[in-house]
Amino acid sequence: MLRKDPVSGGWVIMAREVIPRPPALVPINETETTSEASCPFCEGNERMTPPEIWADRQSGMAKNSRGWSVRVIPNKFALLRIEGEVTRSGEGIYDMVNGVGAHEVVIESARHNARMAHYSQRRMETVVRTWRDRMSDLYRDHRFRYVQVFRNYGQMAGSRIFHAHSQIMALPITPRWIADEMRSTHEYYDYKERCLFCDIIQQEIKSNVRIVSMNEGFIAIEPFAARFPFETWILPRRHSHDFQFLSDGEIPSLAAVMRQTLSGIEQSLQNPPFNLVIHSAPQAKPSDTGGLSARQYHWHMEIIPRLTTVAGFEWGTGFHVNPTLPEEAAEFLRQVIDEGHVEEEE
Amino acid sequence: MLRKDPVSGGWVIMAREVIPRPPALVPINETETTSEASCPFCEGNERMTPPEIWADRQSGMAKNSRGWSVRVIPNKFALLRIEGEVTRSGEGIYDMVNGVGAHEVVIESARHNARMAHYSQRRMETVVRTWRDRMSDLYRDHRFRYVQVFRNYGQMAGSRIFHAHSQIMALPITPRWIADEMRSTHEYYDYKERCLFCDIIQQEIKSNVRIVSMNEGFIAIEPFAARFPFETWILPRRHSHDFQFLSDGEIPSLAAVMRQTLSGIEQSLQNPPFNLVIHSAPQAKPSDTGGLSARQYHWHMEIIPRLTTVAGFEWGTGFHVNPTLPEEAAEFLRQVIDEGHVEEEE
Repeated sequence: MLRKDPVSGGWVIMAREVIPRPPALVPINETETTSEASCPFCEGNERMTPPEIWADRQSGMAKNSRGWSVRVIPNKFALLRIEGEVTRSGEGIYDMVNGVGAHEVVIESARHNARMAHYSQRRMETVVRTWRDRMSDLYRDHRFRYVQVFRNYGQMAGSRIFHAHSQIMALPITPRWIADEMRSTHEYYDYKERCLFCDIIQQEIKSNVRIVSMNEGFIAIEPFAARFPFETWILPRRHSHDFQFLSDGEIPSLAAVMRQTLSGIEQSLQNPPFNLVIHSAPQAKPSDTGGLSARQYHWHMEIIPRLTTVAGFEWGTGFHVNPTLPEEAAEFLRQVIDEGHVEEEE
Repeated sequence: MLRKDPVSGGWVIMAREVIPRPPALVPINETETTSEASCPFCEGNERMTPPEIWADRQSGMAKNSRGWSVRVIPNKFALLRIEGEVTRSGEGIYDMVNGVGAHEVVIESARHNARMAHYSQRRMETVVRTWRDRMSDLYRDHRFRYVQVFRNYGQMAGSRIFHAHSQIMALPITPRWIADEMRSTHEYYDYKERCLFCDIIQQEIKSNVRIVSMNEGFIAIEPFAARFPFETWILPRRHSHDFQFLSDGEIPSLAAVMRQTLSGIEQSLQNPPFNLVIHSAPQAKPSDTGGLSARQYHWHMEIIPRLTTVAGFEWGTGFHVNPTLPEEAAEFLRQVIDEGHVEEEE
């Protein structure tokens, strides 16, 4: 069941219908796993997971067996269920929608100790292509309003399984933050007749003080009003509202910028926990004719290192406090990247 | 310096002009203090703090000496500076405002080990009255757009000083979350000609499944779309948009509901870290004639226990996931409160 807060406009997934008596509150969708033998994401343990949805697999190898490099499975502890129609309902002034959706896991490597900041160019491309293809496939299902691709790395970032993986959720609603961003880009477009993000990219290239990494297709920047130290955005330089429309030809360029950025963050902050989220235009509501405003959006990726010492301020104060200037974080990352100690695992 | 994110519309306080080289990122405004002798908030150590702004003090006792029960001081490590005019500026498409504001600390007890959930009725009333009076005083300064009263309890909630205290910040901008809430209440009022929060209160009293505590003046509820387990809101039952207008006659009733609620949370969750924030209408912009929309708001208090096991989901997924149904959290809290093991310290 999802519930809408009438005050903030945000939706919340109510993940349990039975209250766990405190202090038995446990992580929601994953359990701690440290050893390879018991890791459900390791090669050889394929039968510990639900049957795979897709895998990048050597030809001739059977499904749900060895011989894959990236593997997509349904989340065993899914927050949303794939069966049924989306049913919206009210309870007085409150709004609800039932918990129909999809919740998949992308296992990004067969190796237990693989680390995203060390992925080879080939692996990073495969991961990005997998995200895009799963998103496209899920959007074929017209029950889904928004497909969220995200990655939690490290316990502090909400991850409970060590083995490298990302998650994809298809939601019957548009999350509040994406609705807020759509409103900003729409208002900006109305006033300027230009894309807000395209203008940000132009200004960042011109001022050249917050760029972390850039090539012909993509740019990584520390945003002007970064909420967190070393918060980093990666954007396509050409206007594109929807991550689904990432072309095969653009993938190498995106993967290269991601590798530089993640490697820089890892080295600068001693392998910190981080969250990575793709922001992409939502599927238009039935009432939106033409989805014009969706096309004014500009998809991008946000990477947020989770530094324990600055946790708590957002809920405590009601606004963000960032002790690190984005210009100086960018300079620091550029230096580390220029020194070029990128370890490559595979 | 405060910067506005053009995408989300949120403002961020850039707290340092010099980057601390990782891993030297340290807490922003407070340092760890555990012993009474070295605690700047303890009675007898008054000269360790900046000169006091106000104190609830026995008559005849000198300022900045012993003999107080609640004491207000400027924050030694203030995020904002009181001097100067508010200067708004642009940098291409970006917006900034200089860091003019106030940052005060309310020391809520002279005793090092005092705990808010155990405050006597008298102390809780004094704390609430202090918050109101400081807010009113700060709003006399027309440079300030929003006065934020908040309290971080425990390290996980962002607090670095053990001794019981809350904080008050006067800001030259309106935080994004309050702007979002103002928009919701305004849209609701436009459509219904009623206050959104008054309707929530009516429905909560009628359905009687999410009430934690209630008396003639105030109601504590688990909100319908609670973002966090045991998130609790306390609201005045009569319509009032501004915490400044809390009358002396209402304070005992608010303090009583706060005491029951905090005691229930402490016992249910084994003395958890929590954040407490007052949401109140912002001061009208000069362009707002009459501040009509501000009066459609309804001030309230939000209490958010910080349970480590559910941290990380909001940034990881881009939306909130709550494993605990608010109806069941409310029932649990009511039972604990009914058993009545409220310890009273002083």
